[in-house]
Amino acid sequence: MKILVLGGAGMVGQKLAQSIANGGLGDISIDELILHDIVEARSIKSDFKTRSLVGDIANNGEAIKLAELKADMIFHLAAIVSGEAETNFEKGWNTNARGSWQFLEALKQVHEATEGQYRPRLVFTSSIAVFGGPYPDKIGDEFLSAPQSSYGAQKAITELLVSDYSRKGFIDGISIRLPTVVVRPGKANLAASSFFSGIIREPLNGKEALLPVGTDVRHWHVSPRTAIGFLTHAANLDTSLLQGRLAINMPGISCTVAEQIEALRNIAGEDAVRLIKREPDDLVMRLVSGWPRDFDPQRALAMGFAADKSFEDIIRIYIEDDLDRSGQ
Amino acid sequence: MKILVLGGAGMVGQKLAQSIANGGLGDISIDELILHDIVEARSIKSDFKTRSLVGDIANNGEAIKLAELKADMIFHLAAIVSGEAETNFEKGWNTNARGSWQFLEALKQVHEATEGQYRPRLVFTSSIAVFGGPYPDKIGDEFLSAPQSSYGAQKAITELLVSDYSRKGFIDGISIRLPTVVVRPGKANLAASSFFSGIIREPLNGKEALLPVGTDVRHWHVSPRTAIGFLTHAANLDTSLLQGRLAINMPGISCTVAEQIEALRNIAGEDAVRLIKREPDDLVMRLVSGWPRDFDPQRALAMGFAADKSFEDIIRIYIEDDLDRSGQ
Repeated sequence: MKILVLGGAGMVGQKLAQSIANGGLGDISIDELILHDIVEARSIKSDFKTRSLVGDIANNGEAIKLAELKADMIFHLAAIVSGEAETNFEKGWNTNARGSWQFLEALKQVHEATEGQYRPRLVFTSSIAVFGGPYPDKIGDEFLSAPQSSYGAQKAITELLVSDYSRKGFIDGISIRLPTVVVRPGKANLAASSFFSGIIREPLNGKEALLPVGTDVRHWHVSPRTAIGFLTHAANLDTSLLQGRLAINMPGISCTVAEQIEALRNIAGEDAVRLIKREPDDLVMRLVSGWPRDFDPQRALAMGFAADKSFEDIIRIYIEDDLDRSGQ
Repeated sequence: MKILVLGGAGMVGQKLAQSIANGGLGDISIDELILHDIVEARSIKSDFKTRSLVGDIANNGEAIKLAELKADMIFHLAAIVSGEAETNFEKGWNTNARGSWQFLEALKQVHEATEGQYRPRLVFTSSIAVFGGPYPDKIGDEFLSAPQSSYGAQKAITELLVSDYSRKGFIDGISIRLPTVVVRPGKANLAASSFFSGIIREPLNGKEALLPVGTDVRHWHVSPRTAIGFLTHAANLDTSLLQGRLAINMPGISCTVAEQIEALRNIAGEDAVRLIKREPDDLVMRLVSGWPRDFDPQRALAMGFAADKSFEDIIRIYIEDDLDRSGQ
C-alpha cells in the first residue's frame, strides 16, 4: 500500500510519518510513504521506501500530479495556518479551499480513468476553527459550523467537499476536527494560539514565556502524539459507521490556563512557573475569546478516538517525545 | 439604486421582479432593475428602467461583467436545481459553487478597485437542503449543516463564502434558507419535490395528480409570495443584527401530505381531492425520507421574517396569484 502525506514537512506531518515508520498503520502493509510539502520534508528512517516531493497544492497541475501517484491512503494536512490565512486572504483561499478542491477533482479524474477502481481513503485534518461563538457550555456533535475566520471557513468548505466526493464514491473520506495541538516543539510561531504551547515549553527549557491572556481562559487541547493517534485511527476506521456525517469533533482536554499552569507546577515545580510572565495582549485576548472552550464529542468516543488523560499527561508527552530530543 | 437579480428568469426571480415593480423595495429609491439568467427574462412593467441580460455565471468572465454593473442590491437566485445537480455532478458544482465563488471574487475586485466604496448588499437564496438527517423533531437555529446532496453541499459552501466575504467587508451579505416553495405555478418539473405542488395545482386545474409518497410524510413549506417577502425583508435588514451568523433558517409551515390534502378538500371540495392518485415511487420516497420535517426558526422570527399562516393560506395564495393568471 502506498501512503501520501500532504503537508509532510510540518510538525504533525513529520510526527505522523515517524509514527508510521516506527509502528506501521494498523494492519496495513506499507510499500511506500511519500511526503509532499512546499519544502523538502526531513527524511524518515523506515523499513519501507520513503521519498519527499516538493510542490504547492495551490498551483494548477500539482493536484493531478499528486493524484496520479494513486496513493491508497492519503493524509491531507497541508494548510496555510490560521494567522496567515486571516492576513493574506488570497493565499489562504487559494491553498486551503481551492487547492483542496483541485486535489479532490484530480482524485475523481483518476477514479474515473480507472473505471472506479481507484478510490483512496482520504483523512482530512480539519479544526475546531470551523466553529464560531456564541457557544453552549459543551459543543455537541450537532452544533452548527459558523466560522469566524477565513481559515475556519476554508476548513468547513473542504469538509463539505470531502463529504460530497465521498458520498458520490469518488473517494472514501473522513474529516477530523483537531483540538489545538499542544505542546508544539520548536520555536514560537505567530499563531494567536502559540502561547498555549509557549507557557509550557519555554519554562521546561529554562526560558521565559509570555502569557497574553487571563488565567481564566478555557480551551480545548490535544497532544501531538494523541493527534497522530487520531489520524491513524481515522485511516483504519470503517467509514460506513459515520452514516454520511464525515466530519467529526475529536476528543480533547478542556482546561483553563490556570489549570495548565498548575499542571506545570506539579511536574516541573515553582521555578518553572515563575518563568511565565503576564503580558496582556488585547488582540490575542479578543481572538481567544471567540474560540471553543469545551466539547461533548460522543460520536468520536463511540468510534474509539481517545483523548489524552489529563493536561499533565500532555506535558509528559512533550517531555518524552520532544524535550530531550530537540532541547528546543 | 440599481438592483441585480441573478436567476431573474426563474419562477422566484420573475415574481421578485414583479413584486419590486409593483411595490418597490422598502424605502429604497430604484433607478434600474437588471434581470440576469441563462435565458432571456420575461419583461416586467415598471416605473423604473428594467433590462434583461443573458449569460451563464459558470462561464469565466461572466462574473466580472456582472460585478462591473456595480449594482447596489443583488439577489442571487441562480442555481442548477437539486435533481440536475445530483445527476450532473460537474454542472452543479460549476454553477452553484464555482460560479457563486467567481461572482463573489469579482465583487471583491470591484470593491478594491473603488477603494472600498463599492460594497453591495447581497441576498443569497440558500435552502433547507443544507441539512441532512437524522433530525430532531424541530430543527433549531444551531443545528449542523450536513447535506446529503450535491445541491445542499453547494448551497452550504456558498453560505460560508458569503459569510467570509462579508466578514472581511467586501460585500454585505445574508443567506436565507428557504423552505420548499409551494404551490409552484406551471408544469410539473423533474425535481423530487415537484409532487408537493402537483397534488394541489393539478386538481385545482381539473387535472389528475400523482402522489408518490405516503400521506404521513411531513415537510416544510412556504408560498412563493411569502418567499418573495423573505427576500425583500432580507434586502432591507440591518445585517449587524446577525452577529456574524449570516445564514438563517426561514419560517415555514410544517404539515403532512394528509394535512395538505385536507386543506385542499376544505378549499376545493371532494372532487378536487379525488383527482389525486396514489402511485408509490421508491426513489422519491427514499429521497423525501431524508428531508427536514419541521423547524424552530427563532432567529428569523425575531428579525421579522413571518411564515404563511396555514397550508390553506398557501393554497389561497396560489389561487390568487397564479391560478386565474396562468390557468396553468
